Amino acid sequence: MFPKNCWYVACTPDEFADKPLARQICGERMAFYRDGEGKVAAVEDFCPHRGAPLSLGYVEDGQLTCGYHGLKMGRDGKTTSMPKQRVGGFPCVKSYPVEERYGFIWVWPGDAEKADPSEIHHLEWAVSDDWAYGGGLFHIQCDYRLMIDNLMDLTHETYVHSTSIGQKEIDEAPVRTKTVDGEVRTSRYMEDIKAPPFWQAALVANDLPADADVDRWQVCRFTPPSHVLIDVGVALKGEGGQEAPADKRANSIVVDFITPETETSHWYFWGMARNFKPEDQALTDQIREGQGKIFTEDLEMLERQQRNLLEFPERTLLKLDIDAGGVQARRIIDRMIEEEQQAEQDSNLIKTASA
Amino acid sequence: MFPKNCWYVACTPDEFADKPLARQICGERMAFYRDGEGKVAAVEDFCPHRGAPLSLGYVEDGQLTCGYHGLKMGRDGKTTSMPKQRVGGFPCVKSYPVEERYGFIWVWPGDAEKADPSEIHHLEWAVSDDWAYGGGLFHIQCDYRLMIDNLMDLTHETYVHSTSIGQKEIDEAPVRTKTVDGEVRTSRYMEDIKAPPFWQAALVANDLPADADVDRWQVCRFTPPSHVLIDVGVALKGEGGQEAPADKRANSIVVDFITPETETSHWYFWGMARNFKPEDQALTDQIREGQGKIFTEDLEMLERQQRNLLEFPERTLLKLDIDAGGVQARRIIDRMIEEEQQAEQDSNLIKTASA
Amino acid sequence: MFPKNCWYVACTPDEFADKPLARQICGERMAFYRDGEGKVAAVEDFCPHRGAPLSLGYVEDGQLTCGYHGLKMGRDGKTTSMPKQRVGGFPCVKSYPVEERYGFIWVWPGDAEKADPSEIHHLEWAVSDDWAYGGGLFHIQCDYRLMIDNLMDLTHETYVHSTSIGQKEIDEAPVRTKTVDGEVRTSRYMEDIKAPPFWQAALVANDLPADADVDRWQVCRFTPPSHVLIDVGVALKGEGGQEAPADKRANSIVVDFITPETETSHWYFWGMARNFKPEDQALTDQIREGQGKIFTEDLEMLERQQRNLLEFPERTLLKLDIDAGGVQARRIIDRMIEEEQQAEQDSNLIKTASA
Repeated sequence: MFPKNCWYVACTPDEFADKPLARQICGERMAFYRDGEGKVAAVEDFCPHRGAPLSLGYVEDGQLTCGYHGLKMGRDGKTTSMPKQRVGGFPCVKSYPVEERYGFIWVWPGDAEKADPSEIHHLEWAVSDDWAYGGGLFHIQCDYRLMIDNLMDLTHETYVHSTSIGQKEIDEAPVRTKTVDGEVRTSRYMEDIKAPPFWQAALVANDLPADADVDRWQVCRFTPPSHVLIDVGVALKGEGGQEAPADKRANSIVVDFITPETETSHWYFWGMARNFKPEDQALTDQIREGQGKIFTEDLEMLERQQRNLLEFPERTLLKLDIDAGGVQARRIIDRMIEEEQQAEQDSNLIKTASA
Repeated sequence: MFPKNCWYVACTPDEFADKPLARQICGERMAFYRDGEGKVAAVEDFCPHRGAPLSLGYVEDGQLTCGYHGLKMGRDGKTTSMPKQRVGGFPCVKSYPVEERYGFIWVWPGDAEKADPSEIHHLEWAVSDDWAYGGGLFHIQCDYRLMIDNLMDLTHETYVHSTSIGQKEIDEAPVRTKTVDGEVRTSRYMEDIKAPPFWQAALVANDLPADADVDRWQVCRFTPPSHVLIDVGVALKGEGGQEAPADKRANSIVVDFITPETETSHWYFWGMARNFKPEDQALTDQIREGQGKIFTEDLEMLERQQRNLLEFPERTLLKLDIDAGGVQARRIIDRMIEEEQQAEQDSNLIKTASA
Repeated sequence: MFPKNCWYVACTPDEFADKPLARQICGERMAFYRDGEGKVAAVEDFCPHRGAPLSLGYVEDGQLTCGYHGLKMGRDGKTTSMPKQRVGGFPCVKSYPVEERYGFIWVWPGDAEKADPSEIHHLEWAVSDDWAYGGGLFHIQCDYRLMIDNLMDLTHETYVHSTSIGQKEIDEAPVRTKTVDGEVRTSRYMEDIKAPPFWQAALVANDLPADADVDRWQVCRFTPPSHVLIDVGVALKGEGGQEAPADKRANSIVVDFITPETETSHWYFWGMARNFKPEDQALTDQIREGQGKIFTEDLEMLERQQRNLLEFPERTLLKLDIDAGGVQARRIIDRMIEEEQQAEQDSNLIKTASA
């Protein structure tokens, strides 16, 4: 279950730099490519001629060309030409609203008429020179909501990531969750502790001592449909935590765009944005490599959790205080799905009445 | 959906030279072996004792011997012996009419009583010393009819095989399809063109200049149940095309025997027969290798087309002029299936009436 | 179909020496570990918090700890603690009666109240210094009853194991099967024969001549739910066979514990116990290696037999004299299953009546 009338991160430009990209999103099979004007396009990955995947073709004269028999497709899903054929009556395939922004391609898998690019959240870290970003993509065999749960409950760091970002103090610090203006925020503050290895390295990278006493924070922010941005960091003890001067802290934003593929699989775009030493590409690479290793530790847990849930469909899971972030995020998602279903029913009623 | 009362190519003799061969054809699980008189036999791959696959056994004293407990099976599917057992009452398994001809094993997966070996088409290239043949076998995960479509519409060469046998002129030449006496024939003629790389090599092999201006032809012939033989070649421009003298052309027959395994998979016996330099085995090997590489290019397209069609079962595909060969071939296949179903119904009616 | 109110071999202690073991038995997903008192425990492999597999966790302070968010589980399936949480109301997961005995872990996958460790058969070879044991574990994709059939009808040795323990005389010797006190016994005696290669090696290992004329025996004993112990050996001709003096024979017990995983897969614990030169570890290793190779020969046959039976569900298999062991074993198993179903129905009636 996923809402479809919203913007998801679909891919990054490098993924279709050489040839079209086949990617299923929210159950929709899409082919991504760059058209004649350099604009990204996404159409259903199904040639109206014989059903071949258009993504096996290539772009010629700015048009997606089927690699089987040469049909050419416009970005609106209408066939524009085919050798020796009149294509006026060819059936149209779906096209999907797409936007290239912040280094990602965003797609609207639902009702195209409702797509409004202004609804894509502003991401300051993606446009400001004060920030650097590095990230990657995982294809994970579990419901995207299990990943949201994972990221909204960071107590798992103590267990899954015990050698890098986890530490016993996470467990022991109280956690607060609230939903404000459609954003779910789960916060945890740990004061007067030692930084775990990943943050020790970040302190050093920011010219601070690895063994300093620090205050640590984690503020997870879920925004629909399925983005989780997490303010994380450590500051020298008593210097104001998140509000400490820049030379007294090391902090970053963990970036998580979580895009459903099917009911039980998703695309996970993970990364980290930081606003210290943004020009240091070697540091960016080093952080990405470290984060990639850490986030890989979640995969087996999530995929086997999914298999367990499929095996025991009748079981009710617990909803503890630490789970409140995921619970409230799912509430927002459920409401979006209901609204879409209601809108569809209303639309059908209108069609019936006017028929 | 496939007709079963007809001859299909099942395998080649080398495939069961050392031990029995398990192969599923039209949904029937068969074990192929050579009996005591050196004749090929095919029985259901199911031991009546405990259901072990007979193909895991061996041939002893000319009889297929189950490799689990030693039951011996006759070519008629009747158990002939088993150590220390009386086998008279053992249930019979199916046996299948088989013929070894033209270097292939032909099998009749349907009603054995209707099998008539004289219905196997004569293949002159397979028996004449003027011809040489080389080929191979692919196991492909798609409906066998998608392969028929593929071979009856060679415009795909321009796209799928652009570096070998494809060229833009294929697209531009008109195509004609007609059904005569149960054979569907799709023809395309291209005049005054340059040969593509594969045919340049063939010209050279036939002592003709690679860069000559040529006339090219492609005549695809479908015969039921699912054979496609294609007359292809190039002749020096204006020398009569297909009718040009042997020293003015390079031509061959593309041989395609397409045998259903399941509804969504098939065995593809491909090859090429040529009547120039038939004694040149090195040339045969070289052509087979080249053809194998070219035909491999179709596999991903066909298998992903199949998955797309399964994903979108309700879509209607287009039937353009270039698709007429496949369309008319399917019409013949559909009629065969209907006739088989009708005959079965009639037979059931007779049984009921006489009961 | 398998009885669940009985003891099965689940695993060996080495399998969970370093970390918990996930294993499905009779459809139940279990996590095995050693608790704080060094006693083996088995609980459902499902964390009541969020459904993560407990087997991905670790044992801390003698308690199974979920590797996702740190929930701690008692051996009774009740949560004992979780950081910063009150766990009194947490739902209980299943726990399974387990016993460590004879070098194996035994589990009772059914109604825990009915579990009685005294029902585990005594295995003299496993506790006596006069015996040595070596064995291994296979995971096989077939109904566990096909393995029982396999082991109760050793005529298959002639065919499947022709180069090691098979010989033509097995086929020719009559076989007798009878059920006494819930044990099915199938016996075969071969007199005045030459030993096959495996037994020639055993003769030599026992300081007897490889080429001696021998009497050979095979006595297969099935006991419920699915254990098959086989007395096998050779003795110098005319010295009394099984009753021959120890220095005139080479013999052993083939040990087979066959534990259902799903309806079409099982865990196969195989091994050999011998009472000559029990202190010779090199001999134990050599025999285990040889037996492992021999028993591997059964795998393809069994798994493909299973696929054949799934493909032809309506076929009736033969029940010859050689199959009597498997047939009578299945009769016992069927009765156990019926009794369990009857008991469950009775229990439901009582619940309904008292409601």
